[in-house]
Amino acid sequence: MTSTALSRAERLSLLSITAACVAILANALQGHDKPLIVSLALSGLAFCASFALIRWLGPTFVKAGFKGVDMAKHSRREIPECMGAVCAAVYLFAIILFIPFAFYKDVVAATSGGGNRDVVLQQQVNHVQEGRFLHRFPHSKLSSYLSAIVSLQTIASLGLADDLFDIRWRHKFFIPAFAAIPLLVVYRVDFGVTSIVVPLQLQPYLGPLLDLGGLYYVYMAAVAIFSPNSINILAGINGIEVSQSLVIALLLAANDALYLLTPYPHPATDSHLFSLSFLLPFIGVSLALLRHNWYPARVFVGDTYCYFAGMVFVVVSILGHFSKTLVLLLLPQIFNFLYSAPQLFGLVPCPRHRLPRFNARSGLLEPSVTPWSPARQPRWGIVGRGLRLLGRLRLLRVVVDGEGRLVETSNFTVLNLWLVWRGPLREDRLALEMTAAQAVVGLFGLFVRHRLALLIFKEDNWSLL
Amino acid sequence: MTSTALSRAERLSLLSITAACVAILANALQGHDKPLIVSLALSGLAFCASFALIRWLGPTFVKAGFKGVDMAKHSRREIPECMGAVCAAVYLFAIILFIPFAFYKDVVAATSGGGNRDVVLQQQVNHVQEGRFLHRFPHSKLSSYLSAIVSLQTIASLGLADDLFDIRWRHKFFIPAFAAIPLLVVYRVDFGVTSIVVPLQLQPYLGPLLDLGGLYYVYMAAVAIFSPNSINILAGINGIEVSQSLVIALLLAANDALYLLTPYPHPATDSHLFSLSFLLPFIGVSLALLRHNWYPARVFVGDTYCYFAGMVFVVVSILGHFSKTLVLLLLPQIFNFLYSAPQLFGLVPCPRHRLPRFNARSGLLEPSVTPWSPARQPRWGIVGRGLRLLGRLRLLRVVVDGEGRLVETSNFTVLNLWLVWRGPLREDRLALEMTAAQAVVGLFGLFVRHRLALLIFKEDNWSLL
Repeated sequence: MTSTALSRAERLSLLSITAACVAILANALQGHDKPLIVSLALSGLAFCASFALIRWLGPTFVKAGFKGVDMAKHSRREIPECMGAVCAAVYLFAIILFIPFAFYKDVVAATSGGGNRDVVLQQQVNHVQEGRFLHRFPHSKLSSYLSAIVSLQTIASLGLADDLFDIRWRHKFFIPAFAAIPLLVVYRVDFGVTSIVVPLQLQPYLGPLLDLGGLYYVYMAAVAIFSPNSINILAGINGIEVSQSLVIALLLAANDALYLLTPYPHPATDSHLFSLSFLLPFIGVSLALLRHNWYPARVFVGDTYCYFAGMVFVVVSILGHFSKTLVLLLLPQIFNFLYSAPQLFGLVPCPRHRLPRFNARSGLLEPSVTPWSPARQPRWGIVGRGLRLLGRLRLLRVVVDGEGRLVETSNFTVLNLWLVWRGPLREDRLALEMTAAQAVVGLFGLFVRHRLALLIFKEDNWSLL
Repeated sequence: MTSTALSRAERLSLLSITAACVAILANALQGHDKPLIVSLALSGLAFCASFALIRWLGPTFVKAGFKGVDMAKHSRREIPECMGAVCAAVYLFAIILFIPFAFYKDVVAATSGGGNRDVVLQQQVNHVQEGRFLHRFPHSKLSSYLSAIVSLQTIASLGLADDLFDIRWRHKFFIPAFAAIPLLVVYRVDFGVTSIVVPLQLQPYLGPLLDLGGLYYVYMAAVAIFSPNSINILAGINGIEVSQSLVIALLLAANDALYLLTPYPHPATDSHLFSLSFLLPFIGVSLALLRHNWYPARVFVGDTYCYFAGMVFVVVSILGHFSKTLVLLLLPQIFNFLYSAPQLFGLVPCPRHRLPRFNARSGLLEPSVTPWSPARQPRWGIVGRGLRLLGRLRLLRVVVDGEGRLVETSNFTVLNLWLVWRGPLREDRLALEMTAAQAVVGLFGLFVRHRLALLIFKEDNWSLL
């Protein structure tokens, strides 16, 4: 068991960040309300709190049974598992504390008390618009904000239940759908927009706006199911769950920040400020977790973190009405999901764990494989031919014996594919390269979103003009 | 391990309740919106779901480490612990599904999509008041409702964390305070009333209304800390946690129902409908739990249930603005807390468990005791004299030796006190009598609230005239 104490340097850094953030908050409390700056300060505090708690709570988690063995190390130590739960708790706390800074009341009501809360003695309408990106949200958005919190709490609880009870794969696939219910229910009551902008080429047939009605909820539910699960299946080596989530969060935040540069009041500014206020604390707690989960990992993140991260993205993109942008940033995850499909849907046998294999002699990771015995070749000829084709396209490592029978094929995950392309890599090198790939693909996605979108839509909704 | 299967009679009953409730819901979905009836139907479904899940999930909970030994039985079987978590999950699910039935939108906004959610194309103000107690809540209350859900989810998570990690007593005392933060934060942003009605006798000095300002939040936080903890310390025998909570919930619901008989629009009707919609599903899941937790218990409820129950009461009474009524219904818990004080605050040694002692020979419960050796008498003379005085007043069983030294005193809980008064009782008899006492005191409390309150306030806010 490694020490749970913070080093001297860590303690000093955390204390100075905390002091700076508290000073900013104290300043904000004196009436200089600048929600974005408050959100930054709370995110700094969230970073410090989760950093210290992840370190300190290790033994407590191990004692409660949250522990796992790191398979890709020489020393097969048990380390604390499910530390994403700490991040989720700190994050939710920060997000709740942010509420009074984020919203202004446009109706101040005083009642006679004693149960008669509906007798409004005095009504004061007070529209505050403090210009640019320091203004507060209108009170009417409070219920959207709260529904996001309810969804995030739900996914955290269900993720914890999964880590506790080890729910079966085909059940846990739908966990995010349950967690999305609060969001969708409140979206229905509170907002209820179900129309989308039609691409220029189709407008002659469909008109400029198409109301999808109930289908829009199906679409949102599909995004809500996909995003958390896709983070969860691109997992298995130290740091990868957190680093991919961080890249996506940073790109979403960068996209939000673009809108802060537009002349105010731009109609989408509020949505993107809203989104930023959910992303900044997430970046804070994720950085703290990454520090402990990066190679060589001191803690595991648990399914809780993967689901939670995926749901944060769902929440900001649905409430911010930019779920298509999210889909562009999830391209590596979508590729991983499609690539995994042959194993997920049973065309190719799927072992319980498909993470890359640790070669104890070299200390490097190699693609893990599905073995084929001469007697147990693919049941359908087409699968065999498909596997050999993928092998020729360098999309799979295929080993055949002298008589052309399959001996082994690498497992269908993007991590194994990367190792097929790049050869054996050390665990942190693989995580770093995958993260870089995620960043490159994501930047390209944002470019597509803001530049190429003009080819099929009349205007990009972000414009400096 | 007892069977996890439902008996034939149970299965038939659950199926028929489910069918009836689904029929009501289907009817409601066709536009005949009657929130109170929908709430009743959802509560019926919540009862069935938690009944079945508590039965089915027993082995899963035991496997995950949630198990305990029933001390007051001959066979010291291990049974599943923390089943309150199932109730909390089902309850929250029901409460979230209720949202679209409970609220109407008074502003219908359609936007151009594509991120521009703030461009309101059409605004339609639509005030629906379907009279009496079938009308829906105004949309402005949605954020109060959601903040209640956030608080309840928080307390459920923290309760679960307590059951998992076995948090120390002096830390867990403040768990409910954390869970109340969402409620108080949203109360501040959304509602913000901090004035109370001043009793007639004090009005010449203070005026009719007194604004407590920040103190009002301290008061609400105090109620929020007290209620869950007070349920949690009146615990220890089969069924008592659930039955006391059920009595309080039923009395609160009865109090709410009083207001449905008043001529509409009575200013407090909405608050009490609001409260009912939180209480009915709670009564549903609690009945299912009581069936399994009543003597002889098949499951334990866990701290999760006690905290959750206490928080449901806090939520309805704060949002309904009748927290004083709650205090009247918690009189037995307040008495138990005050009576426990000598042990809680260390004047008298406090063993880890103070539940009544099981006499294996008679099969009855007897008061558990704190032993005093001749060498280890109370440190301060006043404590010794106090203990003897309580003994003479029949408020404590005190055993002294020939020389007047303390030999043993019964533990300071209302359960032990009841056994001192009534002599040894079987476990279910004790639970039944305590529950009856709770009901009698509660009914008296409501009588005080509605009749005697006129002595110090100008009017009762419930009146048939």
